[in-house]
Amino acid sequence: MPCGVNKLENEKNNKMDLINIVGTLGGIVSSVTFLPQVIKIWQTKSAKDLSMGTLLFLVLNVSLWLLYGVLTKLYPIIITNSIVLSMVLCMVFFKLTFKK
Amino acid sequence: MPCGVNKLENEKNNKMDLINIVGTLGGIVSSVTFLPQVIKIWQTKSAKDLSMGTLLFLVLNVSLWLLYGVLTKLYPIIITNSIVLSMVLCMVFFKLTFKK
Repeated sequence: MPCGVNKLENEKNNKMDLINIVGTLGGIVSSVTFLPQVIKIWQTKSAKDLSMGTLLFLVLNVSLWLLYGVLTKLYPIIITNSIVLSMVLCMVFFKLTFKK
Repeated sequence: MPCGVNKLENEKNNKMDLINIVGTLGGIVSSVTFLPQVIKIWQTKSAKDLSMGTLLFLVLNVSLWLLYGVLTKLYPIIITNSIVLSMVLCMVFFKLTFKK
């Protein structure tokens, strides 16, 4: 194989590695994003400042991502968005429960 | 081309169409998700119940998606996440400004 092709192949592999690392990091961060908010509402028993519109958009958004993951059979997307959806639904429940 | 192959090709195209529709819908919904929350904080001048931890995770999360979009040159991901990042930074600013 000519040296140039090998170098190109290496650069492509390095870029794929970086894309995979960024994707994996993104998945881990996504999963824990709403945990501090869920804990805060639970501790203060207050969700007055949270927008129900944004919460419902989040439900729709994460559900679409879950559907995308199922259609493309990408299991990291399925797992991440299942975790996020459960937390978002938790916030919707809190918003309806804690009226103060 | 044998009929079976043609049918398989059609099914594959239909699935790709569905994946693209779900992806586009997801992008549109993502872009507007935090708009109601930004408007609500602006109107009430209160962000007490919002978790700074979740806001910072959102900044990290959306930045990673933006980086992913830049690395993969996927412009819908770049545009969507630029819009979302501007709204999330807006919420961080509000959280720091409106202390009540």
